[in-house]
Amino acid sequence: MSLVRDRAHANVRALQDHICDAMSAVDGTPFLETTWERPGGGGGWSRLIEDGVVFEKAGVNVSAVHGTLPPAAAKAMSTRRDLPIAENAPFYATGISLVLHPRNPFAPTVHANYRYFELGDGEVWWFGGGADLTPAYLFEEDASHFHRVHKAACDAHDPAFYPRFKRWCDDYFHIRHRGERRGVGGIFFDDLDDRDPDALIAFHRSCGEAFVAAYQPIIERRRDTPFEEHHRRWQQIRRGRYVEFNLVWDRGTVFGLKTDARTKSVLMSLPLTARWEVEDDPEPGTPEARLVDVLREPVDWVPLDPK
Amino acid sequence: MSLVRDRAHANVRALQDHICDAMSAVDGTPFLETTWERPGGGGGWSRLIEDGVVFEKAGVNVSAVHGTLPPAAAKAMSTRRDLPIAENAPFYATGISLVLHPRNPFAPTVHANYRYFELGDGEVWWFGGGADLTPAYLFEEDASHFHRVHKAACDAHDPAFYPRFKRWCDDYFHIRHRGERRGVGGIFFDDLDDRDPDALIAFHRSCGEAFVAAYQPIIERRRDTPFEEHHRRWQQIRRGRYVEFNLVWDRGTVFGLKTDARTKSVLMSLPLTARWEVEDDPEPGTPEARLVDVLREPVDWVPLDPK
Repeated sequence: MSLVRDRAHANVRALQDHICDAMSAVDGTPFLETTWERPGGGGGWSRLIEDGVVFEKAGVNVSAVHGTLPPAAAKAMSTRRDLPIAENAPFYATGISLVLHPRNPFAPTVHANYRYFELGDGEVWWFGGGADLTPAYLFEEDASHFHRVHKAACDAHDPAFYPRFKRWCDDYFHIRHRGERRGVGGIFFDDLDDRDPDALIAFHRSCGEAFVAAYQPIIERRRDTPFEEHHRRWQQIRRGRYVEFNLVWDRGTVFGLKTDARTKSVLMSLPLTARWEVEDDPEPGTPEARLVDVLREPVDWVPLDPK
Repeated sequence: MSLVRDRAHANVRALQDHICDAMSAVDGTPFLETTWERPGGGGGWSRLIEDGVVFEKAGVNVSAVHGTLPPAAAKAMSTRRDLPIAENAPFYATGISLVLHPRNPFAPTVHANYRYFELGDGEVWWFGGGADLTPAYLFEEDASHFHRVHKAACDAHDPAFYPRFKRWCDDYFHIRHRGERRGVGGIFFDDLDDRDPDALIAFHRSCGEAFVAAYQPIIERRRDTPFEEHHRRWQQIRRGRYVEFNLVWDRGTVFGLKTDARTKSVLMSLPLTARWEVEDDPEPGTPEARLVDVLREPVDWVPLDPK
């Protein structure tokens, strides 16, 4: 019987193949794989399409790293999990992390991440993850579909998951200095350790498989939408917001940049291009303003089951 | 006799006029001024050229804010200055902050900031500031000129200033996750309180006036340099680094975004457009690689006077 860490890792590797196969077929372009090693232990498999047909930038990374926990990491985790975590404790972490930035301004950016973390000889461990959609233009049917598919993946494991993880996602992807969420949400969870690890690996697998079912119909129907220069400009402004969230608020990105993580992998999430205009508030009543409205006040995109 | 704070403020307002007049003449475009009020007290005068002839984005802001110190600010300042600063102490801050991003890839971005801070009834106060140059392509004569002019401004006040503030600048504008400085440096200083405040206001004035003398000849000689698409691409990649520094490492920006500062003013420093490619290391021996070399190992651009 293999270790939990090995099963969790095999799972994210299989998800990488599954998702890359599907997205590579959408783009008509293969992913280029770079492998890297971490000086302290472990390494990763980074897969990238840059300047593709459909995707301006698409990164799908898996890593599996181990070693001794840097003091800053131990401190951050202790605070978050409210349990003492020793500096220099042995740790193991594996996960898949992906961000797809399409070229067409009507096609939304999407992000997903599924990760497993272990301390010591496995006496402390947890799972985290989620997937969220970031359109520049709102299509309610896209947001509802993305949520519906992820809700079904959650419901198969625990009906309490989706309502909790949907709200968690809205709370987490909050660009506080703008008073806006990054996008129309999805699911987000962390520190899950309240059930059998294999049940959580299976949950990871369901979510990861749901990703393709959730995103592929959306990218297929938006990828070739005709657009004008002003649509592209608004997309670039929203990409600027994406950069702001990731570099200022995203725990994993900021932590990665301030410790010894591999910068190229951490920053693969950034869009190929972005734009900052000082006065960028859209005119009321426009499609651009409609997006900002739902970013200011998150919406329940699928009805929650009655309690 | 007016208060120190009033004299410090009048000085940064006069510098704003001086610098805007000169840069507006370079561009052939007037700055548009927006004034704003801070709910807790004070406000600002933001001047902006966006999509100008020479400058893609040029922001020259003055603010004067007062009120009671947010707990997070008190904590950050106490740590930095190693003295206890009470939460909710009355404070006053005024300063000028400017960033000019030219359109031409051979014309460097420039930043300057001169600020005065006061606590309580003025029993604790300090001055900070600096100016630094961020080229996408290195011209040694530009870097030397920029440093030489700022050294002369420093030397007129204290010969110990330039060597100390030059090094401080290299240390401060360090994009640690890239192992690169943001640019070719200049001067940076903070927490200056070891002499008569009027001497430091005069030092601020000298530095602010040096700014035009330091930058104008550079922008005039680079603004119309012929360039190709690949030069522009490299400029955009370097602008991505500028965003990374400001959003991840710049104390003022990160602090501003996490407290109640005015987001539009804080982020006026960001370039109009930026780019992130995953594999962006320049070929050895190219002009792009030559820049990265000096960003990795800061250079003394003007000979320091023998001790």
